[in-house]
Amino acid sequence: MVQKLKIAAAGLGRMGARHAINFLHRTPRAELVAAFTPDLKELAWAKITLEPHGVKLYTDYDEMIKQEGLQAVVIATATSVHAEEAIKAMHQGLHVLCEKPLSTSIPVCKQVLDEALKHPHLKVMCGFSRRFDESYRDAWDKMDRGLIGRPTIIRSQTCDKHDPSGFFVEYAAWSGGVFVDMSVHDIDLALWFLGDDIQVKSVSAYGVRAVQPELAKYNDYDNAMGIVEFWNGRVANFYCSRMMAHGQEDVTEIIGTEGKLTVNGNPQKNFVNHYGPQGVTREVPAHYYGRFEQAFVAEANDFAAACLDNTALPLKLRNAVKAVEIGALLQEALVQGVQIRLNEAGQRVAEASVSKL
Amino acid sequence: MVQKLKIAAAGLGRMGARHAINFLHRTPRAELVAAFTPDLKELAWAKITLEPHGVKLYTDYDEMIKQEGLQAVVIATATSVHAEEAIKAMHQGLHVLCEKPLSTSIPVCKQVLDEALKHPHLKVMCGFSRRFDESYRDAWDKMDRGLIGRPTIIRSQTCDKHDPSGFFVEYAAWSGGVFVDMSVHDIDLALWFLGDDIQVKSVSAYGVRAVQPELAKYNDYDNAMGIVEFWNGRVANFYCSRMMAHGQEDVTEIIGTEGKLTVNGNPQKNFVNHYGPQGVTREVPAHYYGRFEQAFVAEANDFAAACLDNTALPLKLRNAVKAVEIGALLQEALVQGVQIRLNEAGQRVAEASVSKL
Amino acid sequence: MVQKLKIAAAGLGRMGARHAINFLHRTPRAELVAAFTPDLKELAWAKITLEPHGVKLYTDYDEMIKQEGLQAVVIATATSVHAEEAIKAMHQGLHVLCEKPLSTSIPVCKQVLDEALKHPHLKVMCGFSRRFDESYRDAWDKMDRGLIGRPTIIRSQTCDKHDPSGFFVEYAAWSGGVFVDMSVHDIDLALWFLGDDIQVKSVSAYGVRAVQPELAKYNDYDNAMGIVEFWNGRVANFYCSRMMAHGQEDVTEIIGTEGKLTVNGNPQKNFVNHYGPQGVTREVPAHYYGRFEQAFVAEANDFAAACLDNTALPLKLRNAVKAVEIGALLQEALVQGVQIRLNEAGQRVAEASVSKL
Amino acid sequence: MVQKLKIAAAGLGRMGARHAINFLHRTPRAELVAAFTPDLKELAWAKITLEPHGVKLYTDYDEMIKQEGLQAVVIATATSVHAEEAIKAMHQGLHVLCEKPLSTSIPVCKQVLDEALKHPHLKVMCGFSRRFDESYRDAWDKMDRGLIGRPTIIRSQTCDKHDPSGFFVEYAAWSGGVFVDMSVHDIDLALWFLGDDIQVKSVSAYGVRAVQPELAKYNDYDNAMGIVEFWNGRVANFYCSRMMAHGQEDVTEIIGTEGKLTVNGNPQKNFVNHYGPQGVTREVPAHYYGRFEQAFVAEANDFAAACLDNTALPLKLRNAVKAVEIGALLQEALVQGVQIRLNEAGQRVAEASVSKL
Repeated sequence: MVQKLKIAAAGLGRMGARHAINFLHRTPRAELVAAFTPDLKELAWAKITLEPHGVKLYTDYDEMIKQEGLQAVVIATATSVHAEEAIKAMHQGLHVLCEKPLSTSIPVCKQVLDEALKHPHLKVMCGFSRRFDESYRDAWDKMDRGLIGRPTIIRSQTCDKHDPSGFFVEYAAWSGGVFVDMSVHDIDLALWFLGDDIQVKSVSAYGVRAVQPELAKYNDYDNAMGIVEFWNGRVANFYCSRMMAHGQEDVTEIIGTEGKLTVNGNPQKNFVNHYGPQGVTREVPAHYYGRFEQAFVAEANDFAAACLDNTALPLKLRNAVKAVEIGALLQEALVQGVQIRLNEAGQRVAEASVSKL
Repeated sequence: MVQKLKIAAAGLGRMGARHAINFLHRTPRAELVAAFTPDLKELAWAKITLEPHGVKLYTDYDEMIKQEGLQAVVIATATSVHAEEAIKAMHQGLHVLCEKPLSTSIPVCKQVLDEALKHPHLKVMCGFSRRFDESYRDAWDKMDRGLIGRPTIIRSQTCDKHDPSGFFVEYAAWSGGVFVDMSVHDIDLALWFLGDDIQVKSVSAYGVRAVQPELAKYNDYDNAMGIVEFWNGRVANFYCSRMMAHGQEDVTEIIGTEGKLTVNGNPQKNFVNHYGPQGVTREVPAHYYGRFEQAFVAEANDFAAACLDNTALPLKLRNAVKAVEIGALLQEALVQGVQIRLNEAGQRVAEASVSKL
Repeated sequence: MVQKLKIAAAGLGRMGARHAINFLHRTPRAELVAAFTPDLKELAWAKITLEPHGVKLYTDYDEMIKQEGLQAVVIATATSVHAEEAIKAMHQGLHVLCEKPLSTSIPVCKQVLDEALKHPHLKVMCGFSRRFDESYRDAWDKMDRGLIGRPTIIRSQTCDKHDPSGFFVEYAAWSGGVFVDMSVHDIDLALWFLGDDIQVKSVSAYGVRAVQPELAKYNDYDNAMGIVEFWNGRVANFYCSRMMAHGQEDVTEIIGTEGKLTVNGNPQKNFVNHYGPQGVTREVPAHYYGRFEQAFVAEANDFAAACLDNTALPLKLRNAVKAVEIGALLQEALVQGVQIRLNEAGQRVAEASVSKL
Repeated sequence: MVQKLKIAAAGLGRMGARHAINFLHRTPRAELVAAFTPDLKELAWAKITLEPHGVKLYTDYDEMIKQEGLQAVVIATATSVHAEEAIKAMHQGLHVLCEKPLSTSIPVCKQVLDEALKHPHLKVMCGFSRRFDESYRDAWDKMDRGLIGRPTIIRSQTCDKHDPSGFFVEYAAWSGGVFVDMSVHDIDLALWFLGDDIQVKSVSAYGVRAVQPELAKYNDYDNAMGIVEFWNGRVANFYCSRMMAHGQEDVTEIIGTEGKLTVNGNPQKNFVNHYGPQGVTREVPAHYYGRFEQAFVAEANDFAAACLDNTALPLKLRNAVKAVEIGALLQEALVQGVQIRLNEAGQRVAEASVSKL
């Protein structure tokens, strides 16, 4: 019989449930054998949806990761416990696929990274779904084949459909801020397309509270824009927003010396156009999962393959840390209203030296 | 434990292998338990790909369908044996999902239909994949909600990327002709969008042999166009081609009294655009599976659900017969160079009565 | 001083007024010196709009064309007098730009053509505006450069925004029918792209009265579709409609053995897209002039240049006749419900010989 | 006879020649009566092209503006003499349409503005062509009708096709820098869409020299990006580039609290798409005039109308100065590598106070 990766799911909230289902039904080389949630509603869902397929359910994470034969865990609990759970899993000798971010705290991110370095035989990955998206992969291949010359500028945005319930106000209390929470995807794309050895030279950022003024209490914004200049003559321009009326719009442009690639330039839910008195209309996905569902499926499959075959993961854990670091710089530039400058060694350059002009 | 539909795959050619994989890995409520192929290469593939997952392999169809516990079969063998195998499966009390067409012979199609009527408890479906495509379903829902008034005209095409190997010349020997082989999908869409009770009033068709003159030996064409007028004041315009330089282009327009819906109006492989000296370019899927893969997955899942829950299938078997009938009328009009007219009872009106003008 | 073509405008209705303004203000090498209309409202408009620019106004066509120094006339009166006025103008030694069609009667069209043959020094052109459109010209050049191999199939449509006033019912009394009135543009494109020496082999056509049943009294339709097969292995598929909810949609596809060109595949009023809760919407031009205004300006300028420089016109008068002939064949096939067949000499083949099958 | 605005053209270079032709042939209410150029080649062109139409030619600007009956002048000479010529024209009582920018020096810009204030009966306009473009006007109207709620963010770019001749290196010596030369259009759009009373709060900018390193000698860049934060909670993000492989791409997005408008989101030369082995390709205009030609024609006509009817110009002269001021702030932030901050009175806030963090 075929050998399958025995994996457990930690956290069965919105994203956790999707990971569980993907490993259960859409990852031929994996077998979901366990799931953990401290939430009773989620547990009830799991009893109906997962248990009949032979998935053992737990309300205690520590107990679950000791299940005999378990080889890996996918972590999609609250961000605040991602790091701790990842480290415990590594201690148990488990491969780890962790929802982004590892943590909103850079030192905590680094603890996970340090722990992973001690277990070189384990696959530890922080899931940046766009790396597994067919369109992004095709764009990367085209760039890699030289189609646009030397990639120089990246413009990338993560823009959510406006949720007027105000849910994201409270969420801002612990999300790390919009740049860490949302733009981290775009920053990861910058590392992927411009090279993960790029070093930040300067960061500026601006934001507005256009639809949710209460975000002020958490020093956060509903729209933010920032520019990151790198030391090798490359620039990234990011935009994140929670205010889109039309749906999810995640657009990326990679501009090279001899051409340009765009991904998602024309957001669309499907291939239908409606022609009526208003003109021609197409719909837009309401949420990121409407756009990236197949990328999450590919992520699960690629992770399983890397664990079983002991092959390289398509993205490095230290980049996940670097993406959060850059996100945090943007967030600081945004909140403090300053331009942050770093030398080539990555150290802060005193503002005073800048302002002597 | 969850009850799963035990299904067997007959035929492991290009499409058969896809069905087998879809039922094996992408249909949570089904379990692929058996597969049949008379072809040694396909068998070798199955030994590697299917057998390790517990799928029993057969080189004899009759033997396979007797496997204990088997509940259903998906048939993707050569068209010439579809009908016979479907009927045998029904005799064994198996649900049947048969690749289109049931047969290129209308009497044979009707035998399958007659047999199915004798087994009302069995689900027997001829797979028209577009019925399971999210975009077509969305378009249908929009039409059903009245968004375009009364649907009146459908224009639909099935256009393949040109395969210069000439493969399709020999294929034409037994394909039933381009309208039966290719446009049958579009005809099925006409039945779906205009109503499956529509009756043909008149048929005209024209073709050219632009890239493959050898098709003449089988009286077939590499491009064909036809118009079908129905008795209720509706019209369908079909186009099929094997000559596309750019890839697969299957476009459908449904034109109503108050609006229009298009599906696939702008064919695209993914969400990437390349801007270069040539302008702005996007790629197009090379084959129908590049466009409709998820529709085939949905088909497998919906079929499994209908079998297990004894719910209605999303498409009626008699429509599959009707689609072939209309395809055959188009093919006849094409080959004979005549306009074919039918009365409301579906009987041919003598050509002579037409030409008295 | 620069020599300018002294031109008169006959007819100041919707299109006539546009021609007058175009020759007055947007044709540097022409000078509008006279205008004729029998309509008092149009005359009042001309007194305000044309007369102050030195344009002499007439209520008698015969008188106008005798104006001293006059060199040309643009005819945009009622279709019924186009031919007579064109012939009179030629008798006066005037170049003629005549709105399409010359006549809805083929014998009358031929009279104009015969007359023109007697005046080889005069430029006589029937205005098919799409021949002067930058996009159609670009598509033609691309085809001519071999970009799509051998052009084989043309699909072309002229679809108007639905005018619920019912104006076009009475208009149908003398328009010659939808194929002559509307599709004549698309037929002309077929002659341009497939070669004006192509000979009709067979014609079929179908129509519906979906929004204006009263068209029955004039044997006309609000939607019609037809296929014309030519003797050199090429096919044209036409569609015309007066039912579009979204605006004017004139789309053309030229399909060759190695590629395809589309013109207007995505109708758009301008370069604005509105993203809102409905999705992404762009508007569509309400009328053909919204799409083709610059083509009419180019037509005026090209006509003036040909007259002044005695160079060839970009389209031949006999093609204007041929386009009406094909339109009339389509209309006959539509109204009589028959397939019309012609031999290579252009003679009707008896229907009986077709139906011997 | 109709009264026409008697206008002279100063400068007959690329843009000057276009203005001259537009006023000569495409502005019904204007009459080009004079033209000036110190350049012999341009003069030779004018003798052939303008003089035969009764346009008097001059090699001395001062002499030309004294021509009897002259009412207005369109200035398209070198930027360095725009201001002086505009002031001289006002002294002669002439209306002035001046190509952008008035000057790359803000004090000089202000001199023109001051002079114009002394001649309130004269129409003095600095031509920002996008204000006259049908699509931008439609977008503005849609915004003004409330279609996108409160406009909050504008993203706008001016991106030129790469000219490998290096012409723009020497041009950079006196262009004022990319933000003043190119982004000034986008800044003007920001003033138009966000309100011309907005006050700059903070400016950051970054650039690269990706294809033309020699720009370093003039402290300029071939790609630059900047963000301008305004005091009323609005933000603008600009991008300018001289590196596009595909052609001119001037895109603008106006993002509001309830929707978004885009202009030129999908750059296209015309309505042709070519389907071939590469996929589907459309071309892009090579230069801004390919996109904005009709806007320049509208500008000429609107200017003539405002002069003759003494109606308000569609854009205020002081905004032209303000746009250059903001462009200069961006250029300074770019070249100095600093974030510039202003208080609500428009005064610089000391950098030191920022860096106390």
